[in-house]
Amino acid sequence: MTTASGEDNLIARYFKPLATDPGAFGLTDDAAVLAASGSDLVVTTDAIVEGVHFLGDDPPETIAKKALRVNLSDLAAKGAVPAGFVLTLALRDADENWLAPFARGLGDDATAFQCPLLGGDTVSTSGPVMISITAFGKVPPDEMVRRNRAEPGDRVVLSGTIGDAALGLAVLAGRVAVDDPAVREALIGRYRVPQPRVGLAEAVRKYARSAMDVSDGLAGDLAKLCAASGVSAVLDASFVPLSSAVRELVVRGKTSFETAVSGGDDYEILCTIPEDRFEAFAQAARGAGVVVTPIGAVVAGKMAPRWLDGNGEEIVFRRISYSHF
Amino acid sequence: MTTASGEDNLIARYFKPLATDPGAFGLTDDAAVLAASGSDLVVTTDAIVEGVHFLGDDPPETIAKKALRVNLSDLAAKGAVPAGFVLTLALRDADENWLAPFARGLGDDATAFQCPLLGGDTVSTSGPVMISITAFGKVPPDEMVRRNRAEPGDRVVLSGTIGDAALGLAVLAGRVAVDDPAVREALIGRYRVPQPRVGLAEAVRKYARSAMDVSDGLAGDLAKLCAASGVSAVLDASFVPLSSAVRELVVRGKTSFETAVSGGDDYEILCTIPEDRFEAFAQAARGAGVVVTPIGAVVAGKMAPRWLDGNGEEIVFRRISYSHF
Repeated sequence: MTTASGEDNLIARYFKPLATDPGAFGLTDDAAVLAASGSDLVVTTDAIVEGVHFLGDDPPETIAKKALRVNLSDLAAKGAVPAGFVLTLALRDADENWLAPFARGLGDDATAFQCPLLGGDTVSTSGPVMISITAFGKVPPDEMVRRNRAEPGDRVVLSGTIGDAALGLAVLAGRVAVDDPAVREALIGRYRVPQPRVGLAEAVRKYARSAMDVSDGLAGDLAKLCAASGVSAVLDASFVPLSSAVRELVVRGKTSFETAVSGGDDYEILCTIPEDRFEAFAQAARGAGVVVTPIGAVVAGKMAPRWLDGNGEEIVFRRISYSHF
Repeated sequence: MTTASGEDNLIARYFKPLATDPGAFGLTDDAAVLAASGSDLVVTTDAIVEGVHFLGDDPPETIAKKALRVNLSDLAAKGAVPAGFVLTLALRDADENWLAPFARGLGDDATAFQCPLLGGDTVSTSGPVMISITAFGKVPPDEMVRRNRAEPGDRVVLSGTIGDAALGLAVLAGRVAVDDPAVREALIGRYRVPQPRVGLAEAVRKYARSAMDVSDGLAGDLAKLCAASGVSAVLDASFVPLSSAVRELVVRGKTSFETAVSGGDDYEILCTIPEDRFEAFAQAARGAGVVVTPIGAVVAGKMAPRWLDGNGEEIVFRRISYSHF
């Protein structure tokens, strides 16, 4: 009669080792405790679904990492330092060959990003696998970086490169052919395992006026940031940082600039920085080993952000972001 | 180009009205802020899945209420006062005829239990609808009530009645026939809309040594509490509080006592109270309008809790709790 249920065994075996925070009570209780100790707690929640955010035959390690990292990306964009997360796992069955590498990938990232598992729930589903994570970060009181504070004159700045993940998905789906195995792997890697800009969080908190992470496509996410702030922006498309792989695919007509800036899954940080703080921000970013690129300026007005090509001609996109519905 | 996506419209229309806490920023940002202001934050996460925790043709209002209430039940059992929640909604489509009453039910409960929506994520799925909620509560520092603190001599105490929800599900599934429409509705109501014992939270925090909510069946959940505490217990089955509806169905052989104590979905509070604090606890519970019933005692030892019938004979159950796998 004391035999633990399959669910309890699964939790004890695979997930208890990840619950390294004392407030997680080794996952033996119904709830966890987060001691804020003077900080504000930043809370974010993002789910990934099989067939939408990852593919059923993606390696379980990378699925786990993506589930956590899309949330770490949100925390970084808000200027917050990771503090822990809770996990909801909806599975069709409790297959050890899937769960063991999934838990290993999750544990590796929980350690690497100092973001321990605090609790969770495991449920069965007949549908696609879904992983929902709610992550917590800490910022000094009232210092969470908002997305609605952009002001005319701010520089629009982007971390890393854009479009790689969307191209990686296109490669996996057979929509784009890439011959060079190294390029192919690099693009697929960006789709499967985002690189959350956790190292940039402090610089964002210190220097950015507004920020968000780019998850649904740069063009659409920038439009959201501008709308929230009641401003517009003018972007120079030729400044948008593209990896050499994406640049080459655009030049060869295998994909388009529009796909790169609307495809989603980038998990880079988009922020606006007052002109007089830009140098300090760029220097802090260099110190964190993250490339940041100014791509335009915030301007007054309520119209949609305008994208100009190298000749100052406006580019009009047909579709600027991914929507689930 | 500034047209918001379907997902954003859906959030603005249905869920923004629920985001009444200033830290939710009207759901216009990527994250929310929880100011703990000296309290410990208690975090719990529970998901409900179509076909498992609710039925596809249940009213959307009751599905929403159940999703929130199963989490409020956890907070109450931990002695915590609700502070807010985040929501992940996995839907097959964005049907307004379903979303409008869902959001209304959720909003009514968010108001009634003073637990505002802080943020969320909406994703599409081809499988069963799933609602995952992470809820936050506050307790004074280090006062969360644990499940591993039961001591020999404590009384084992239960709120409300047990088995109604499991019978309600059996009625909905056509496994048990109930003729009286009022009884039928009462049982189904307990399955669809749990009554989280939020009013009992303070008394639990003040007087209970250990506590958890009963969600997977009383017998199994009690075994978990005892195992976590390194103790055993002796229960008097004849003391277990059954509603008159369940009692009658047991007497008429339409269900069994075992089904009542192993069926799950009760969302009552199970706690252990030192003998000398029991009267104060019972009085506080009366003040909160919640019936509490002592059903046995914690004893030393590592063996499984023993259930005795009215003649002191041991009852052995075949299955003590629900497991997803």
